[in-house]
Amino acid sequence: MRLSQEQLDHFQREGWLFLPELFTPEEVAVMKREAEAIYEQHRPEIWREKNGAPRTAFAAHLYNEAFRLLGAHPRMIEPIEQVFGEPVYMHQFKINAKSAFTGEVWQWHQDYGTWKRDDGMPEPRAMNIAVFLDEVFPFNGPLLLVPRSQEAGDLEAGHDLQTTSYPLWTLDNETVTKLVEKGGIVAATGKPGGMLMFHGNLVHGSAGNITPFPRKIVYLTLNAVSNHIRQPTRPEFIAHRDFAPIRPVADDALARYARQGLPLAAE
Amino acid sequence: MRLSQEQLDHFQREGWLFLPELFTPEEVAVMKREAEAIYEQHRPEIWREKNGAPRTAFAAHLYNEAFRLLGAHPRMIEPIEQVFGEPVYMHQFKINAKSAFTGEVWQWHQDYGTWKRDDGMPEPRAMNIAVFLDEVFPFNGPLLLVPRSQEAGDLEAGHDLQTTSYPLWTLDNETVTKLVEKGGIVAATGKPGGMLMFHGNLVHGSAGNITPFPRKIVYLTLNAVSNHIRQPTRPEFIAHRDFAPIRPVADDALARYARQGLPLAAE
Repeated sequence: MRLSQEQLDHFQREGWLFLPELFTPEEVAVMKREAEAIYEQHRPEIWREKNGAPRTAFAAHLYNEAFRLLGAHPRMIEPIEQVFGEPVYMHQFKINAKSAFTGEVWQWHQDYGTWKRDDGMPEPRAMNIAVFLDEVFPFNGPLLLVPRSQEAGDLEAGHDLQTTSYPLWTLDNETVTKLVEKGGIVAATGKPGGMLMFHGNLVHGSAGNITPFPRKIVYLTLNAVSNHIRQPTRPEFIAHRDFAPIRPVADDALARYARQGLPLAAE
Repeated sequence: MRLSQEQLDHFQREGWLFLPELFTPEEVAVMKREAEAIYEQHRPEIWREKNGAPRTAFAAHLYNEAFRLLGAHPRMIEPIEQVFGEPVYMHQFKINAKSAFTGEVWQWHQDYGTWKRDDGMPEPRAMNIAVFLDEVFPFNGPLLLVPRSQEAGDLEAGHDLQTTSYPLWTLDNETVTKLVEKGGIVAATGKPGGMLMFHGNLVHGSAGNITPFPRKIVYLTLNAVSNHIRQPTRPEFIAHRDFAPIRPVADDALARYARQGLPLAAE
């Protein structure tokens, strides 16, 4: 699968690109089911909100077959290789829950700030990917993006260990205000199966979720192989050390897995 | 000003009605300016968020001329008298800030729950009104309404003294989930000057505001005179005891006040 010139231009200019319903309802259903089973487990890779609700399951592609297939899916890998002009590897893989009623805030930040400071990543040549497992509405805590903010480069940030229940290098209000005056805010909403890709320096955050609609997103980072991290300080399940290029699976691999795991009456 | 039959039917069925840009940019500008001046004051009617940012200024119609004129404005009073078929008085008047970056959550609730339990209001014959002083976007903490939830009547509620920095009778997650399955969620968004009216039993809440866009709303309650409160327990500036029918001012009173307060070069 290749992006059109128009799609590439949109990404270069705005810092983000959304591919609606890239994965089918069948592929989404199996990932949703497996995500829920993963959240039942207790293991160090699974982090929870203050009230105990699951928040983030790291590295699920290493211990779950459906997410292994997603992590090497050609509909995701090929467009990113196209943007970077070289093979990519998995820098981080997580399933973020943003639970119904209790999903918490993520303050405004750039992800590259963390990759550079905490992982020793040389350049912002890594792509953030969000694959929607639930419908993301304007009101259940969508990712809020500040278009074109990637142009500002790597901004000064403070280490927030309190507001978000995850250590983040966050931006101050004055910086965010200036960038929003220039670029506005886009709420990344869409049906299950949509895939958002955005630049490592794109400023983003998300409000809490007070609605009954959970908002599970597989949130992963594909890094250009030549840009592999040099000085990791975080656990291996957060910042992976396997820099081998991802070899994409077949386009129907996840669909075949879904059918095998959930036999249909018609088969 | 009178509502059309179609508007009345919408309100009766859905429990809410939005009148876009009911107040002019000139009228909004003077209210915004005066709201900001009020927030600078320190008086018991002005409540703040945990971080000190202004959150709610009660009873501003009693100590500010622009808000006195809004509180008796025929574009607001006449439609409500039309719905109730009798004169109305001001039960509560507040300016809610939902500040940029720090605006906090209001959990799901019905307002009539509070009016009944805390003020001794006999029936849900009081109307909630929200007049937008800033643009309300999907992402700066809009009011989230559960359409048709007013049909459920007065629901059981718990007194939440913690989550929202204001004492509220809030609903449990199971109740909210059932009502949302039936009616969905509508985010009340719109340009400055818009007016939302909604039923006292309509379930609503709002998420926090992490954006640089403040979201000031004048939020008031007009009660049918015959339905005046019987057993107030809250301070008079929160639940008013003046049950005299409001006599509307002239339609251009607020605009004239705006011009007098802000002389224009062209005049």
